[in-house]
Amino acid sequence: MKKTSKPVKILSDGKYIRHMIRNGWEYVQRKNIAGIVAILAVTDEGKLLLVEQYREPVASRVLELPAGLAGDAHGRRREAFEEAARRELLEETGYAARKMKFLMEGPPSCGLSAEIVTFFQAGGLKKVGPGGGDEEEDILVHEVALAQAEKWLKKMEKKGLMVDPKVYSGLYFAMKNLS
Amino acid sequence: MKKTSKPVKILSDGKYIRHMIRNGWEYVQRKNIAGIVAILAVTDEGKLLLVEQYREPVASRVLELPAGLAGDAHGRRREAFEEAARRELLEETGYAARKMKFLMEGPPSCGLSAEIVTFFQAGGLKKVGPGGGDEEEDILVHEVALAQAEKWLKKMEKKGLMVDPKVYSGLYFAMKNLS
Repeated sequence: MKKTSKPVKILSDGKYIRHMIRNGWEYVQRKNIAGIVAILAVTDEGKLLLVEQYREPVASRVLELPAGLAGDAHGRRREAFEEAARRELLEETGYAARKMKFLMEGPPSCGLSAEIVTFFQAGGLKKVGPGGGDEEEDILVHEVALAQAEKWLKKMEKKGLMVDPKVYSGLYFAMKNLS
Repeated sequence: MKKTSKPVKILSDGKYIRHMIRNGWEYVQRKNIAGIVAILAVTDEGKLLLVEQYREPVASRVLELPAGLAGDAHGRRREAFEEAARRELLEETGYAARKMKFLMEGPPSCGLSAEIVTFFQAGGLKKVGPGGGDEEEDILVHEVALAQAEKWLKKMEKKGLMVDPKVYSGLYFAMKNLS
């Protein structure tokens, strides 16, 4: 989170989210995290790893890239984020990554929220655990043939699931590497 | 916004954002809108239209797809959204679209926010106005050769701008249509 010396009004200060106004603009920021990581992970067999879980804010099951919150490691930001990406990928999908490459980062909802998502591309994947998330998560893992991913996502939407647009951000990088 | 009969606690109720807890999950929702539209717009000359503006939540200038809020038109949701997409594209970029096609929709930050973004693809573009946004906006329009878009975005990031990951979601659909 950026520091600022400009006038700030706090509307509410929750456990995880702060709701505030700065320079007349109402927005929110996540508390106690350094960032968010999302992982584009394609297996050697060309399968894209996606996670499915119920998301209370949208009251629906949502298909997303594996992702999670990253803590602060006192200045070693990029290394800490890469470590978080490896941990989240393993926790959520059961896959360990030999390679983890920075792809891009940016704010997914910059009119509303200060959050920034850092995207990594995982490579050299090996299944070493069950996945499914930590004890508070209930995550279903999907392995989707990359060439069929968009068609598969449309099919899942017809079943009532939502798709995080960041999945398509990942697909851009995945398809580019294919061609 | 979905209605729910489940227990909800309001932490703060701002002018534009409500901060709340439902079933133990802390999140926010935008108020008084039916949705958000984002527009993938590529001119007949193969130029992708991007907008640049200062975004207070991230204290930075951000490159984004043209986008905006959509109101509620009493049940004619898809039509209202398509109309909002045309209006926002015109206001922000000065381009009128002969065609406006639904691409996808989904929650860009579903752990934090109830918001859903609906993506459209504009076609048959014709420059009919100056763009730049309404009287409260200060928007710079970029026309970027589609084949060079990623390289151009990286260059702009080096200058200190941020890039909304939804730009890459749009690029996925744009590049797919090219190949």
